[in-house]
Amino acid sequence: MHSPPRTEAVPVPTPAASLVFTTTLSHGPLTRAEIGRRTDLSPAAVTKAVRPLMAAGYLVEGVDEEARPSLGRPANLVRVDGGRALFIGVKVTGDEIIAVLTDLCCRIRVARHVRITTRDPGAVLSSTAALVQELLTEADGFGVRVSGMGLAVSGDVDRAAGVVRYSPFLDWRDVPLAELAQAVTGLPVTVDNDVRALTVAEQWFGAGVGVPDFALVTVGAGIGCGLVVHGRVVSGAHGVAGEIGHLSIDPQGPPCHCGNTGCVEAIAGDAAIVRRVGEVTGLSVTDSAQALELAHRGDPGAREVYARAGEAIGRAIGAVVNVLGPQRVIISGEGLAAYDLFAEQIRDTFAAAAFGTAAQCDVMTRPLPFEEWARGAAATAIQSFIGTEHV
Amino acid sequence: MHSPPRTEAVPVPTPAASLVFTTTLSHGPLTRAEIGRRTDLSPAAVTKAVRPLMAAGYLVEGVDEEARPSLGRPANLVRVDGGRALFIGVKVTGDEIIAVLTDLCCRIRVARHVRITTRDPGAVLSSTAALVQELLTEADGFGVRVSGMGLAVSGDVDRAAGVVRYSPFLDWRDVPLAELAQAVTGLPVTVDNDVRALTVAEQWFGAGVGVPDFALVTVGAGIGCGLVVHGRVVSGAHGVAGEIGHLSIDPQGPPCHCGNTGCVEAIAGDAAIVRRVGEVTGLSVTDSAQALELAHRGDPGAREVYARAGEAIGRAIGAVVNVLGPQRVIISGEGLAAYDLFAEQIRDTFAAAAFGTAAQCDVMTRPLPFEEWARGAAATAIQSFIGTEHV
Repeated sequence: MHSPPRTEAVPVPTPAASLVFTTTLSHGPLTRAEIGRRTDLSPAAVTKAVRPLMAAGYLVEGVDEEARPSLGRPANLVRVDGGRALFIGVKVTGDEIIAVLTDLCCRIRVARHVRITTRDPGAVLSSTAALVQELLTEADGFGVRVSGMGLAVSGDVDRAAGVVRYSPFLDWRDVPLAELAQAVTGLPVTVDNDVRALTVAEQWFGAGVGVPDFALVTVGAGIGCGLVVHGRVVSGAHGVAGEIGHLSIDPQGPPCHCGNTGCVEAIAGDAAIVRRVGEVTGLSVTDSAQALELAHRGDPGAREVYARAGEAIGRAIGAVVNVLGPQRVIISGEGLAAYDLFAEQIRDTFAAAAFGTAAQCDVMTRPLPFEEWARGAAATAIQSFIGTEHV
Repeated sequence: MHSPPRTEAVPVPTPAASLVFTTTLSHGPLTRAEIGRRTDLSPAAVTKAVRPLMAAGYLVEGVDEEARPSLGRPANLVRVDGGRALFIGVKVTGDEIIAVLTDLCCRIRVARHVRITTRDPGAVLSSTAALVQELLTEADGFGVRVSGMGLAVSGDVDRAAGVVRYSPFLDWRDVPLAELAQAVTGLPVTVDNDVRALTVAEQWFGAGVGVPDFALVTVGAGIGCGLVVHGRVVSGAHGVAGEIGHLSIDPQGPPCHCGNTGCVEAIAGDAAIVRRVGEVTGLSVTDSAQALELAHRGDPGAREVYARAGEAIGRAIGAVVNVLGPQRVIISGEGLAAYDLFAEQIRDTFAAAAFGTAAQCDVMTRPLPFEEWARGAAATAIQSFIGTEHV
């Protein structure tokens, strides 16, 4: 087997070039004039930014035959050359590792899942390495080298240092994940908080395209939130942001695994719902599917637990909206399976909690399967490759 | 009396020019190389941005004789020409109007206060007009025209529309304040939320200089918060942002004037403290000074009320820090007079509420008298004048 051709990341040092790349990725193919309009850059600045990206082969230019005017010069369109490089994105949940192989346009080419039975960092890492190896083998078929890998886990993740500071679900503390994953895969590794990674994908390709200020609220095992403010994902000065699961909304509320009481997650997270449904029904309830089934069968106690969870989520969204006033809130996560059980409470509580015109915020739901989260991890690897993580 | 020379606002259309202006205002005098370093602009982009600002006289350039090197060319320093234009900033509280006359560097030249006895918009407007007239007369002495006026009030303010949507303290709803103030003063008027205006001043000249992500929490009649994320003040897509006073932190808490229960402001705002100190002591307590005196004299009931207020403020700061992860939180406002009574509770509750490394955020206090808030209003007028409100 011959080695695929190697592509090396060409540094794209300027914020303008990064902005041009991500704009073309989200909205392309675009004319240079259109790039200028969308990025607020002058024609000269666009030309200057496009040049190194073209030289590296990340952007390509061609005539759009369909848009050829009957008179005059045809419009040259600039687009990202998806085939120029491949990336791997991995999302680690408490039960499963989901990995995708994407191109430079972050289109998923191959997806793989594997169940995990232990959350021990070493075991998770070796399962990840095996999955990555499968994808690297698939990548050989494309004749393009895999240029980087993104790893997304929940919790307090320091992307710059490559360290998972604290992940309550995985019970990890201070795991130097980037270094460890790089050692076992041989790839440049970017680690990030999973909701933040998903937010990057949503900003580039999803309901966040062209929306400078939005929040992505994820409901499921944890209650998370990714934020885009002034067109950029919020990372927090110390790596923590969007931690709405640990907003304490009731001093008399249940204890949370983080050490506080009355956190949103301690009321509306999967584990809290499962436990509480077991308590109120007196039945042995061991997972979300059972809790959900009881509620869907009409058990009033179980339905009440979901209603309270909806109120907690609505209150958390109200907090985000009062603090940041985003244009849009996107609700997603595996917890959407229960959405019919708490949609009304989310909306009513949010509407009551929102101050003044903040209530005008557009609240929508959007199912995003775990492949999409893994795609978000691949997006963070593309950010690192292109050097757009600060744009 | 001869008319002072008129200065007209010269449009500064590019984001780069706005960025150069505010950078020079905060950090100047600066060499062009230093401007480039701080703004991430190329030498050519700096030159292009500086040119129209120089032509309009907003920026001036001169040799720094002290920094003259023994060999080689002296460094040319660029600075804002403060004397080029004057501005008026007005802050309206429930009892008082505070107005300042500033130069283009937002330095206060003259300050005036007037008590108000009614919060009726018409009455407040005519008191404001009288105060502005005094400052316009003072401005004549400088031989420079007043180029704009900023008006800062609490609540949900739509700066773009010039409308106070809802100000609970003033009991105003949908007051077209910019239009009304423009009619009585003849000046271009910018209206904004008062905490947001103060945040602009703090970002340009205060504890926010050079800090890309910070929160300014104000404690007093209301509990407010101004936010800077990615170097820009957060305004909210619909005009509301930083409304931490109306985060509901306790479903069993006291009713709030906004219609919810357990809001931070319903526990820690001046009126709530005064009422509660009256209740627990059984004394007639009519204002903050009396409540404060009781607590400072050691009344255990009064001290307890302040302790609870401190917890509510700490919890609100915890919410901001968990959502945004700012580098710094600045606590200010007239409520700092009681700071010794609740500092410990603020710090302890914040530390417990902050998730993971978010607790590393630097929390500091900073007394900012009402003149500083009025200066913030003048800063918003300078933003409108220069066209920097989007930077």
